[in-house]
Amino acid sequence: MRFSVWHIRLASGWPYVAVLCADDAKKLGLHPFDRIKIKYKTKIYNAILDVSDTQFPVRDGEIGMFDELYKTIGNVEGGHVSVMPSKKPESINFIKKKMDGFSLNKKEILEIVKDITNRKISNIETTYFVSASYINGLTWNETVWLTEAMIETGRRLKFTKKTVVDKHCIGGVPGNRTTMLIVPIIASCGLLIPKTSSRSITSPAGTADTMEVLADVNLGYERMKDITNEVGGCIAWGGEVDLAPADDQIIKIEHPLSIDAEGQLLASVIAKKASVTAKHLLIDIPYGPYSKCKTHNSGKKMGEKFLKLGNHFGMDTHITITDGSEPIGNGIGPALEAIDVMKVLECTEDAPYDLMAKAVYLAGKMLEMAGRGGFKEAKDTIISGRALAKMNEIIDAQGRKVAHYSHIKLGKHIHHVIAKKKGAVRTINNHAIAEIAKAAGAPLDHGAGIYLVKHVGDKVIKHETLMTIYAENSMKLKHAVEYLRNFKAFDY
Amino acid sequence: MRFSVWHIRLASGWPYVAVLCADDAKKLGLHPFDRIKIKYKTKIYNAILDVSDTQFPVRDGEIGMFDELYKTIGNVEGGHVSVMPSKKPESINFIKKKMDGFSLNKKEILEIVKDITNRKISNIETTYFVSASYINGLTWNETVWLTEAMIETGRRLKFTKKTVVDKHCIGGVPGNRTTMLIVPIIASCGLLIPKTSSRSITSPAGTADTMEVLADVNLGYERMKDITNEVGGCIAWGGEVDLAPADDQIIKIEHPLSIDAEGQLLASVIAKKASVTAKHLLIDIPYGPYSKCKTHNSGKKMGEKFLKLGNHFGMDTHITITDGSEPIGNGIGPALEAIDVMKVLECTEDAPYDLMAKAVYLAGKMLEMAGRGGFKEAKDTIISGRALAKMNEIIDAQGRKVAHYSHIKLGKHIHHVIAKKKGAVRTINNHAIAEIAKAAGAPLDHGAGIYLVKHVGDKVIKHETLMTIYAENSMKLKHAVEYLRNFKAFDY
Repeated sequence: MRFSVWHIRLASGWPYVAVLCADDAKKLGLHPFDRIKIKYKTKIYNAILDVSDTQFPVRDGEIGMFDELYKTIGNVEGGHVSVMPSKKPESINFIKKKMDGFSLNKKEILEIVKDITNRKISNIETTYFVSASYINGLTWNETVWLTEAMIETGRRLKFTKKTVVDKHCIGGVPGNRTTMLIVPIIASCGLLIPKTSSRSITSPAGTADTMEVLADVNLGYERMKDITNEVGGCIAWGGEVDLAPADDQIIKIEHPLSIDAEGQLLASVIAKKASVTAKHLLIDIPYGPYSKCKTHNSGKKMGEKFLKLGNHFGMDTHITITDGSEPIGNGIGPALEAIDVMKVLECTEDAPYDLMAKAVYLAGKMLEMAGRGGFKEAKDTIISGRALAKMNEIIDAQGRKVAHYSHIKLGKHIHHVIAKKKGAVRTINNHAIAEIAKAAGAPLDHGAGIYLVKHVGDKVIKHETLMTIYAENSMKLKHAVEYLRNFKAFDY
Repeated sequence: MRFSVWHIRLASGWPYVAVLCADDAKKLGLHPFDRIKIKYKTKIYNAILDVSDTQFPVRDGEIGMFDELYKTIGNVEGGHVSVMPSKKPESINFIKKKMDGFSLNKKEILEIVKDITNRKISNIETTYFVSASYINGLTWNETVWLTEAMIETGRRLKFTKKTVVDKHCIGGVPGNRTTMLIVPIIASCGLLIPKTSSRSITSPAGTADTMEVLADVNLGYERMKDITNEVGGCIAWGGEVDLAPADDQIIKIEHPLSIDAEGQLLASVIAKKASVTAKHLLIDIPYGPYSKCKTHNSGKKMGEKFLKLGNHFGMDTHITITDGSEPIGNGIGPALEAIDVMKVLECTEDAPYDLMAKAVYLAGKMLEMAGRGGFKEAKDTIISGRALAKMNEIIDAQGRKVAHYSHIKLGKHIHHVIAKKKGAVRTINNHAIAEIAKAAGAPLDHGAGIYLVKHVGDKVIKHETLMTIYAENSMKLKHAVEYLRNFKAFDY
């Protein structure tokens, strides 16, 4: 059947989508989410069909095309195309197979990941895959093949002249911004560290959010490669680099239910590291009541899987299980965390010692793995100012935003949380700290967050400040202060 | 934040959906599929957020609204609204719980079904529910509560003056159009049978498609009620009646992977029957190699669940396990099946005896259940012409399309399938028959399909016609004839 093209002024944000009215779809024997072939002149395009509701019809004889499809065909509004039913991709059968409790083979997993990456399958179909992988779990082989498929369907950043080392942290600890110290330490030692990081999804700051206070992080593939070759390292937002891009689609699908399928987490981390041709890889697994891993033992279990998978892909992989029971550093929130990082590099008197110690510990381990000087070499880069100089090179290369950390603006609306009695801090509740900082506006309001004056073990005198909340507007500050009632941040 | 309204000229076909550009979404701390509250003047509307791709931006400060939302707010293009983040419905947590392998309680299932019905949850979230119910299965209690929730969230057709009887067939047998005989038989005996039927999804004809050859089937709630009260019965398309409407959304989600979760099937059938206040209910379960139930035993197992669930909802439920090994009647396809039905009612010499026998058997059972005369009474309605008169009343009430079945147009493009040797028909392959009829154009081309000249057990002489294929155009006929090569329809 032939149809006249109508441009839907909207991106579907997903596969190629075309819309027919219910009558025309019926004539073609088509249902929503069926596949069609669209022929324009001599070329054929594959798309997924949507069927418009009777209450707001795409007109008879008309085909609505979302922006991606419309532009690919070549902006032919009013032009004529013919439409034929087409078969579903074979990957749909493999997804069904996984739902029915069977394991998939290498070829089947590659097909699914290819079709997710090339946006040949719809949200609904991808959701079935994510859901089946979550509920039925992935076998070891499936995890390996998923990793392989993610690598294969993305771009690779190849560095051949110098050794690439990389790290990953599974997250869950507020303020834990070690990456921003490890990258300049490692790069100043002559190794390469092309680090991609994520933005916060549920926390008060991701590494990409924090680095963004100091420099541009939307680097993309080419700039990331150039900067790494030029200065030895970078801290880029992973979303624009096209390393293992299937992962981004899967995370989008996981978000509505906040699920985190272990096999997919393992595959996506290892695939991204293999995609930057890392030779040595350190995985930091903080454990604690508010981390993904509650106990040392569960952290170790997850670590062993990372270890096995990383080594399988030829990376010298090590894990470190760290204490995630309290926040690390003083600042929580992008600006406050960026200041902490720069203070450590500048060795100021008020630099958070715990953040420095953890960063040096991790960087030292990574240097050791690469046959270098270990903790001592790591510490030297900080004391000597070489790490600071390297960080400034990286910031300049990525695009500097502030001349010096002292120019970073914090929220002007401030609330001091005061001790009501004397004592000693027994615990600080990571979850409460994160929720209060978010209520204050972090991570989107860069200047919002928390400055921790007291840490676990510190003595507290009545009326002393425990922490200070910063917000960019008074409403949000009020909101954050209200949270104090629901959450007990300090136990002392 | 305040936004200017832009009308997206398209129905989302699902919940209320609004679109912001990536930057604005970020400022609000929102991700795709997050919930928002939209305030226009003093009223607040709940919607699901989509975020437009950078490549085709909804402009900064603009909010795109899909048609349903736009019209509900009141066509305020260019008007200003404010947008606030909002919480996800609680049902999302219940879906997550089901994914994690826990059973749901009555309240939780009701919340999910309500939110599906009122379109408060997105495709992706509904897919997680369908997927978890399919993979983890539903417990007996969950099935009962799902049924209750489906009834509660839909409309009910109440008939108080006469007894309502109803039937359902799980399908899978070509030509099995007994409903169109049972309805006039039952109605002519003074009982009520307000029958809703489905259109074909994967078969060459559904009851709604076949009835549509003779009369209008898009009746809606009010007309369905009036016609049933007036003439005792009707054969309506279920999609417009709003009985257990959650089911329609679930079926839409199941279609892409062709899954059929047993608990949901049971619940949707029983909910629809309870919604028309049926007192007696007969479930026909054909078994055979191409039916949903392959063996008598698996049919019995499924039947027992229907029995238990129907009785639980106060309906006097019976099951009958029938032979589904070969097609029933001579015609396959809407027009050909409608002709079969009318020939049985007119008692013509060439009326398909097997179709009449099965309809009388089922109707007889239903009459017996209602304390009436059983098979004899059922047969009498046909022989006396009372069932024919009732069918004509029903057709007139619904809106007659043809004066007499002899005026029904069949496809003009015909191919006779000829016996290549002599023998006796051992089996007829239901799957092959269905695929060939569909290739010829059924069910969308009403006049397309197959007329079976030979049935199982019939003697065949060389060069005799086994069946005739009808198509409305020569291409489709060619297509159907090609299928003959791949499928062995007759074994003789």
